[in-house]
Amino acid sequence: MSVTFVNLFEVAPERDEDFLARWQEVNEYMRVKPGYVRHTLHRALGYGTRYRYVNVAVWTSPQTHGAAHDDGFRALVSAPQWRDYPSTPGLFEVVHAGP
Amino acid sequence: MSVTFVNLFEVAPERDEDFLARWQEVNEYMRVKPGYVRHTLHRALGYGTRYRYVNVAVWTSPQTHGAAHDDGFRALVSAPQWRDYPSTPGLFEVVHAGP
Repeated sequence: MSVTFVNLFEVAPERDEDFLARWQEVNEYMRVKPGYVRHTLHRALGYGTRYRYVNVAVWTSPQTHGAAHDDGFRALVSAPQWRDYPSTPGLFEVVHAGP
Repeated sequence: MSVTFVNLFEVAPERDEDFLARWQEVNEYMRVKPGYVRHTLHRALGYGTRYRYVNVAVWTSPQTHGAAHDDGFRALVSAPQWRDYPSTPGLFEVVHAGP
């Protein structure tokens, strides 16, 4: 069963450039992992929203998603700068889609 | 410019059936509006996540998205049961996608 990983990021607008550089670094590491299908990173239009970035990534299964979070991943996200960007991650299944 | 509407819902797991019935009622109203492109409703795998449902809906523009939130929409979501499902909506643009 394919799964969707949704991650919500709190980012101050003036930190957009730094956040995007760090996010792309992690994304480049993850997107070549077995089971990665696709991702879409969204940024809020306008300011003042709690979550300025929302990443929606599809994986082939909970297992491939879990296996990709390995030592290399943990090394990347342990950079102290990531503390400036609190994240709310979760794993989801699709229950309704259209058209 | 197409835009993505992301809405996060806090729902107690035992209320899944009622939430889905109400959400589908609103979705059926919105999906025939001019400018609606597509949607995907996700449910968290497992319990204990803050946001149990995440809807990701694409519209052709901020204008079509705004116009769809008309009196008929407001009448639907003013049902008192919606108070049980706090939502965090936001309008987004895509800044990175792959592969």
